[in-house]
Amino acid sequence: MRDFDENNITAAVIDRFQNTPDPRLKRIMTSLVRHLHDFVRDVDLTEAEWAQAIAFLTRTGHTCTDKRQEFILLSDTLGVSMLVDAINHRFSKNATETTVLGPFYVENPPEAALGANIGVGVKGEPLYLDGSILSEDGQPLANAEIDVWHSDTEGFYDVQLPDLSEPSLRARFHSDAQGRFRFWTILPRYYPIPYDGPVGDMLTATARHPYRPAHVHFMISADGHEKLVTHLFVSGDQYLDSDAVFAVKNSLIRDFERQAPGVAPDGKKMDTPWRKLHNDFVLAKAVAKKSVPAA
Amino acid sequence: MRDFDENNITAAVIDRFQNTPDPRLKRIMTSLVRHLHDFVRDVDLTEAEWAQAIAFLTRTGHTCTDKRQEFILLSDTLGVSMLVDAINHRFSKNATETTVLGPFYVENPPEAALGANIGVGVKGEPLYLDGSILSEDGQPLANAEIDVWHSDTEGFYDVQLPDLSEPSLRARFHSDAQGRFRFWTILPRYYPIPYDGPVGDMLTATARHPYRPAHVHFMISADGHEKLVTHLFVSGDQYLDSDAVFAVKNSLIRDFERQAPGVAPDGKKMDTPWRKLHNDFVLAKAVAKKSVPAA
Repeated sequence: MRDFDENNITAAVIDRFQNTPDPRLKRIMTSLVRHLHDFVRDVDLTEAEWAQAIAFLTRTGHTCTDKRQEFILLSDTLGVSMLVDAINHRFSKNATETTVLGPFYVENPPEAALGANIGVGVKGEPLYLDGSILSEDGQPLANAEIDVWHSDTEGFYDVQLPDLSEPSLRARFHSDAQGRFRFWTILPRYYPIPYDGPVGDMLTATARHPYRPAHVHFMISADGHEKLVTHLFVSGDQYLDSDAVFAVKNSLIRDFERQAPGVAPDGKKMDTPWRKLHNDFVLAKAVAKKSVPAA
Repeated sequence: MRDFDENNITAAVIDRFQNTPDPRLKRIMTSLVRHLHDFVRDVDLTEAEWAQAIAFLTRTGHTCTDKRQEFILLSDTLGVSMLVDAINHRFSKNATETTVLGPFYVENPPEAALGANIGVGVKGEPLYLDGSILSEDGQPLANAEIDVWHSDTEGFYDVQLPDLSEPSLRARFHSDAQGRFRFWTILPRYYPIPYDGPVGDMLTATARHPYRPAHVHFMISADGHEKLVTHLFVSGDQYLDSDAVFAVKNSLIRDFERQAPGVAPDGKKMDTPWRKLHNDFVLAKAVAKKSVPAA
């Protein structure tokens, strides 16, 4: 086949994928080519714009390190991450709602004992967070794996701080026999997603702000249940209605209650004001997954 | 705005681009979001597939160096480069047809005198290539800038050979007062696009071969004319009908004529068989360009 023009080239490229052994991969590549070509035709993309797109994607790749994931940031800011999240979590409304993973999750965070303070030495308003991990029928889930991570009061995650050698404001807990968890940390603040790279340039060029409302990330896994990736958002935050990554759900906004100095639920004596949040997470029962293509 | 679902999130993301100062960029981002979201919905993308896509794009970025452009390769193998080429060259049929730039062009190749041999010391069948640069009305274009590059007989470009410190099979010529050019090189061979990276993995997973039919690249610029980016393909090549990057046009296939030992057109005495190609290039008159967005 030769001599393709702007109309027949799409069918020619799709035809080239006809021998793909994995039917799921074939379907994905076919749809990708169709939509990608439709986009290029729709905007009548110039060669200079194509070159800009190549340069943008290359810079985005070069910005990715073991501590920064610029492509996830791009997916987040284009609403793709939340769309994928929505498509994959058509669960019962009894389960806690999901939201984006974000680019700051680190695999295998340090294990911490229940009740530990994951913000030792970090400036900020102390926060006591406890609750239970439950199944949809209200049964407590013992030994659930609970990964927690969030930003400091300046809006930075530990991996963004070059002077920090240890993980901070990041840990893995396991729920006790009654499905309960509890820990100390500090109240997070709203923050900008990293905007010193290509995604930041895209936001600037399109007059978008880079801010996310304050939140604590959770990733919770328990046998026989869907992994829950979610946040709890701090009520009253000025960016709840314009989250740069479209991730806010009303069901995930919480009042992180202000407490006067006194005695905390775990008996700790507090000399300064602090915050308290009690929150139960409900995990959906596991559903069968589609297979994943090999490439 | 909060609580987006898989249907209303697209409008919400597009709305976020409403204040983009550059109307062209606004149009591109709007169309990109619409088509990207449609793709995700069409295939019901799983979270594992999304993570694979992020990892694939990241690897593609990390594979890009100053000598290798994996995103151009991806664009080429998905037919996007040829589609962009077609959209941007709706010129008169009198002009020489265009085809892809490819990932091996290097800016500002070494200047060479007309008649020079750009394949000194490179093994291969000698090739004498000459012709004229013309406008659509047949006028010769003097002092046209003619960039030439191609692979060796093993199928490698100079930038792929780590032991090579000097450019090879790559040069910039300028046409003479009569619009003519001439140079010596060697006959190129078909070759695989680099397939040791993510694009190669994509081709393998989809049972596609990585080969391109033998060709010589040209990029030709002359005042008042559209820049011409094209190849001349060697007739009879086994990959003319299945070029991995969809770039073959019948009008660009040439008989690189076999010659017996004897005297070449420039008087050079040839002791071994060699090849000859006389080819005129016709440049389209310059057309006004759309503006390019700033980001």
